[in-house]
Amino acid sequence: MTMEIIELSYAIDTFYLLISAALVMWMAAGFSMLEAGLVRSKNTSEILVKNILLYAIACTCFLLFGYEIMYGQPEIESHSADADFFFQMVFVATAMSIVSGAVAERMKLTSFLIFCVILTSVIYPLEGAWTWGGGFLAEAGFSDFAGSGIVHMAGAAAALAGVLLLGPRRGKYGKNGEIYAIPGANMPLATLGTLILWFGWFGFNGGSQLQLTGEGNADAIALIFVNTNAAAACGALAAFLTMRFVWQKADLTMILNGALAGLVAITADPASPSPIVACLIGAGAGILVVIAIIVLDRVRLDDPVGAISVHGVAGLYGLLIVPLTNAEATVVAQLYGAGVIFAWVFITSFVVWWALKKTLGIRVSMENEYLGGDLTDCGIAAYPEFVNSKSE
Amino acid sequence: MTMEIIELSYAIDTFYLLISAALVMWMAAGFSMLEAGLVRSKNTSEILVKNILLYAIACTCFLLFGYEIMYGQPEIESHSADADFFFQMVFVATAMSIVSGAVAERMKLTSFLIFCVILTSVIYPLEGAWTWGGGFLAEAGFSDFAGSGIVHMAGAAAALAGVLLLGPRRGKYGKNGEIYAIPGANMPLATLGTLILWFGWFGFNGGSQLQLTGEGNADAIALIFVNTNAAAACGALAAFLTMRFVWQKADLTMILNGALAGLVAITADPASPSPIVACLIGAGAGILVVIAIIVLDRVRLDDPVGAISVHGVAGLYGLLIVPLTNAEATVVAQLYGAGVIFAWVFITSFVVWWALKKTLGIRVSMENEYLGGDLTDCGIAAYPEFVNSKSE
Amino acid sequence: MTMEIIELSYAIDTFYLLISAALVMWMAAGFSMLEAGLVRSKNTSEILVKNILLYAIACTCFLLFGYEIMYGQPEIESHSADADFFFQMVFVATAMSIVSGAVAERMKLTSFLIFCVILTSVIYPLEGAWTWGGGFLAEAGFSDFAGSGIVHMAGAAAALAGVLLLGPRRGKYGKNGEIYAIPGANMPLATLGTLILWFGWFGFNGGSQLQLTGEGNADAIALIFVNTNAAAACGALAAFLTMRFVWQKADLTMILNGALAGLVAITADPASPSPIVACLIGAGAGILVVIAIIVLDRVRLDDPVGAISVHGVAGLYGLLIVPLTNAEATVVAQLYGAGVIFAWVFITSFVVWWALKKTLGIRVSMENEYLGGDLTDCGIAAYPEFVNSKSE
Repeated sequence: MTMEIIELSYAIDTFYLLISAALVMWMAAGFSMLEAGLVRSKNTSEILVKNILLYAIACTCFLLFGYEIMYGQPEIESHSADADFFFQMVFVATAMSIVSGAVAERMKLTSFLIFCVILTSVIYPLEGAWTWGGGFLAEAGFSDFAGSGIVHMAGAAAALAGVLLLGPRRGKYGKNGEIYAIPGANMPLATLGTLILWFGWFGFNGGSQLQLTGEGNADAIALIFVNTNAAAACGALAAFLTMRFVWQKADLTMILNGALAGLVAITADPASPSPIVACLIGAGAGILVVIAIIVLDRVRLDDPVGAISVHGVAGLYGLLIVPLTNAEATVVAQLYGAGVIFAWVFITSFVVWWALKKTLGIRVSMENEYLGGDLTDCGIAAYPEFVNSKSE
Repeated sequence: MTMEIIELSYAIDTFYLLISAALVMWMAAGFSMLEAGLVRSKNTSEILVKNILLYAIACTCFLLFGYEIMYGQPEIESHSADADFFFQMVFVATAMSIVSGAVAERMKLTSFLIFCVILTSVIYPLEGAWTWGGGFLAEAGFSDFAGSGIVHMAGAAAALAGVLLLGPRRGKYGKNGEIYAIPGANMPLATLGTLILWFGWFGFNGGSQLQLTGEGNADAIALIFVNTNAAAACGALAAFLTMRFVWQKADLTMILNGALAGLVAITADPASPSPIVACLIGAGAGILVVIAIIVLDRVRLDDPVGAISVHGVAGLYGLLIVPLTNAEATVVAQLYGAGVIFAWVFITSFVVWWALKKTLGIRVSMENEYLGGDLTDCGIAAYPEFVNSKSE
Repeated sequence: MTMEIIELSYAIDTFYLLISAALVMWMAAGFSMLEAGLVRSKNTSEILVKNILLYAIACTCFLLFGYEIMYGQPEIESHSADADFFFQMVFVATAMSIVSGAVAERMKLTSFLIFCVILTSVIYPLEGAWTWGGGFLAEAGFSDFAGSGIVHMAGAAAALAGVLLLGPRRGKYGKNGEIYAIPGANMPLATLGTLILWFGWFGFNGGSQLQLTGEGNADAIALIFVNTNAAAACGALAAFLTMRFVWQKADLTMILNGALAGLVAITADPASPSPIVACLIGAGAGILVVIAIIVLDRVRLDDPVGAISVHGVAGLYGLLIVPLTNAEATVVAQLYGAGVIFAWVFITSFVVWWALKKTLGIRVSMENEYLGGDLTDCGIAAYPEFVNSKSE
């Protein structure tokens, strides 16, 4: 290859990675809107504060500590090293975004932010290094293309540990096993958030090929786009049909979670299945997420936005089905990797949440939970002019 | 050309098409927000469900049937075949999005979804094949660069057939010819939706050049971006001035529809006019859409979001003015193409809607219309906490 | 270089600039949502009208007059001339967007639009020509990479002149020096707007390198992406910590303004600092903007969205710290450029606002201010169904 071709490829691959990363950054808006739509109005400003700050903390901590822990000082020649950093950085923010939804409406802001520092500085980078940094999981043959496990299931494991120590929102479960629905305050926002995530996922999965030029890369990326979209579409359809069958209603939040579950599931390997198989993978995730959300509610794991089901259950499912379409992956290696990642993130997160609980506390007071985080933490209502049917 | 140059061009053109397609996918969020903002709050979750599901269905049906009907198995060499598929696929979703707005607030969900399957599997792909698949309209010299007719007027024709069989919303027209405004519940959402569409349209029109490298393509795409934006800007301004003149008010929804009409009109040929001519084309569309919305209301065609005026009237106008700037187009061929497309889509859609009306029914019951689709179809309110001035 | 390489570079650089410009266009949605979220609901449709129309006017006026005033007829060879035009055009819209927020809730629509014509046709293009058009400020060594001063501080200067002649909103300040908070009606919208701006800023700063191919450009652009993001993240964190320290609350609007201030500040030179220095620059802006907002409120300069603090104060700060990381810049030249730009835009704007005040008037009547712009100017409420706690 001539020098000129190499320079041109370098420029193109850098641009491709930067645009992909910007789309993943945009997913921060997706999580913000999704969670702001699915909580009650009295906790809306507070969840927005958490989302902005977690993104800001994740970026800063990954710059200061995370990237070097995860990747060392890699020799990158095909594109700009800063573009590589930027792309990897926005992934850690995604992992942390998963946590904020699951612990919403009852978690203390300060403890949440401290946990965020630890997850994004240490827990996630160490875990990520084992596969994407060329560590022992990569050597064991564990395969996770864009992070069904490394990003999504990891985020869900951290969330699960927090939810177990935190307990459900007051009023969510009755003394005699009753389950009360606590509807989100703003469905258009939740829908917008889902569509932002869907759009941003083209950067998340498409960018994970890491190179656009060179033999076969452009074709792989095009297939990734098609499969990512197909899995989301069929996840939404399957969740819709499942809910329609069991509950006779077109449940919007389940449809949204179905689409997201499809996206999470295809993320483990969006480049191997044919588009029709990607449809089936997405449909499976859409059915699974409905079951998972119902089961988690039965066992009184209160997850206001369904994050553990969407990112944890569908993430694990995505990892385990990789061997169906990718001959280089094995079920054993996938189980091993999933087990190691889950155990590491869950246990370390549990320890951190537990230490926070014993010191600063992680749960807001009963009175503050009743009043809502907007008033008590932010001093600013999300919708100050609209008369609220729930307030007295 | 050397092999290396060819490979590099292939990668670049694939990336260009994928980014364009992702922007068109993002238009699904635009239609969702626009329609969610322009319906009443009691039908907001329901219109969001329709928008997500129609996109999901369109993608799946076009994968299973539509693409092959429309394009056969084309030999594509300049970019990845999957990128081509993905780009064409998101166009069919746009066509169907137009329908959901026009039939909003009174159409049964199941019948809507069945219609969606048929339009995206058969009606649209057959129609699209006649021009973009190299069929008889292409041979007749019909010119429609990015789909003023093939996508937008076609969607409006399907919508018009539905609206005629469906009738207006209850309370829209009085017994003595009165026309009652039914304001949309959330203007910021409608504005956001319009701006998403405006942004996404750079992918819609810009990507329709299909190739970035090669003689003149980059210049053509740049001009398309400028013209697309100029038409939207002047469409908004013209609609504003028209309304200000006739009604003394700065009607936000008309301004939004003016921008969209400008976008629809320039879509038939965004690569031929100079930017100043594109301004004039957009301004014409902005005036026309105001007149069309008023006239349609007079003849009691109830279209809650103005979709038939924006996509149908401005789409036809866009087709007919192509010969003014493009020497290869003729008025006769444009009229012929527009007539064939309209007749095909309108008649087949009418038959499908009619068959649905005679079997499942297409209109919700009077009681359900009063209660709203959120309660009856979705079981989930869009804004459950905000006290509603319209509810008793 | 071979002809083929030149053609390929031309295509790539054109595409890079078009995507960057589309992201800046998307910032129009960011300003729209930010301002719609921060005003009261009775002025929401009206601020949306202003935002759409100012973008439309800016595009049209820059096409007709502005571009030629600012750049003459530049000989561009590395990318399409239309792409260059499109990229420069969206910057003038950004400058004008800053004004609409500061004068919100009390400015007459017609006068606002007339000012918009003058700013985007003459005031901004002349000012921009002095640096980016190769004029006397460029020759004096004034350095402003993507427009901390030329775009942001200039917009703030025009806004300040308007606010001084317009006076505060009724009810904002009491007779005995009281300052009353007037909370924005919709915090999720304001957050969405900020995140749109953050996302779009990658185009704003990243595109300002103007070329992707060629020695060092791709690396520069990657660093710009990283630094832009780092400054925003640390701006948000610093504003949060400052507010937490002085007020014990996690003030969402201050966090949003902190992020925006970080973005504005880094814009003067995003390509020179290391990422950690960019963090410090952003953090400084985040602290500064909190102080500026409080001080401006004390001196009774009513700026409903904090635009003068975010774009003016942080813009000036950004200009003045360029010499810290860029050896080619001097404090003297930066002060000279900032002074010239501020003086020009402030004085000419003041004259135009003053002339408008003496003729058409710039302030709505007391009754109309009480009723709100949605009813009086637009005839359309932003949220017609939600019962408002403020209305009697």
